Amino acid sequence: MYVLKVRSHSREELVEFTGLVREKLKESGQREGILVLYVQHTTAGLTINENADPDVPRDMLHALRTLIPQHGMGFRHGEENSDAHIKSSLTGSSVTIPFQDGKLLLGQWQGIFLCEFDGGRERQVIMMIR
Amino acid sequence: MYVLKVRSHSREELVEFTGLVREKLKESGQREGILVLYVQHTTAGLTINENADPDVPRDMLHALRTLIPQHGMGFRHGEENSDAHIKSSLTGSSVTIPFQDGKLLLGQWQGIFLCEFDGGRERQVIMMIR
Amino acid sequence: MYVLKVRSHSREELVEFTGLVREKLKESGQREGILVLYVQHTTAGLTINENADPDVPRDMLHALRTLIPQHGMGFRHGEENSDAHIKSSLTGSSVTIPFQDGKLLLGQWQGIFLCEFDGGRERQVIMMIR
Repeated sequence: MYVLKVRSHSREELVEFTGLVREKLKESGQREGILVLYVQHTTAGLTINENADPDVPRDMLHALRTLIPQHGMGFRHGEENSDAHIKSSLTGSSVTIPFQDGKLLLGQWQGIFLCEFDGGRERQVIMMIR
Repeated sequence: MYVLKVRSHSREELVEFTGLVREKLKESGQREGILVLYVQHTTAGLTINENADPDVPRDMLHALRTLIPQHGMGFRHGEENSDAHIKSSLTGSSVTIPFQDGKLLLGQWQGIFLCEFDGGRERQVIMMIR
Repeated sequence: MYVLKVRSHSREELVEFTGLVREKLKESGQREGILVLYVQHTTAGLTINENADPDVPRDMLHALRTLIPQHGMGFRHGEENSDAHIKSSLTGSSVTIPFQDGKLLLGQWQGIFLCEFDGGRERQVIMMIR
């Protein structure tokens, strides 16, 4: 088990950390299995998406913000971050990725992202291999 | 493997059942691994979110209902629960949570919720440890 | 580990492939565990939903298209498929399903679907058993 630290710098941001996951997988020496990443927060999520064009994460945050704005939807939760809680449940708290020959079976354009919806801050992600 | 029963009382409701999961994990005697919860229904989902302020689940159901109302979107499925099917795919049918030293590695504010979108009824959730 | 090929024929389509997964699970000879399916693409997802009435997948694609249309949301990514990237993150890149006695523990109405958002094409899904 590894505890990964991922740092965001804006209220909403998709932070790629594929390199860190690859490094820890190598360190583990495991050759085949599944790798589970789990975020221990309720206003951030995890997702797999394109890591080539930065407009893809930008468009994703833009669409989510359009659908679920921070203000104006009649939220009652007092911390002004109900939108972040909801986006976190929509993207999900974990990703599961298979690996073989010690390599993550990500597609050609896939990267692993922390979905920050109430940053910037340091977030904690648990990594477990099975 | 365990079969958990989770009971909802309204059409839409987030029902926390973290305590039941912890109890079964303890019963299993397992110390480290991943715990998979899987809901065997197509109009309910599972999610991890804040379990401190009841306004968080309330705001989540409110936002989902605003985006995908039961009526008025031009749905064709005859049972008047297309909205529930869609919300179930958006939240997801399973959650995967790592555990260590026999304890779920949930964050400080995280609880495990059944997302009921077409209740009230008793729902069945499979729990498997790996 | 198995590499499954799933073919779509429209830009947006929910393609059921439960039968193929069952066949490979049988082939594996495994009796109990979890089965992970992982899609290696950034404009397609995976979901579990009803496989009885074709209006359910139809309504799901209709609602997602209403919320996140291909054009008109101010997307910047140049390939005219930002909507597909976003829908892929909302449905998710993997599903995890428990099995016992060699049988998938799907509910009575549940099927496994590739969510195609930028087809038609052949998509690759990794299947791993743990």
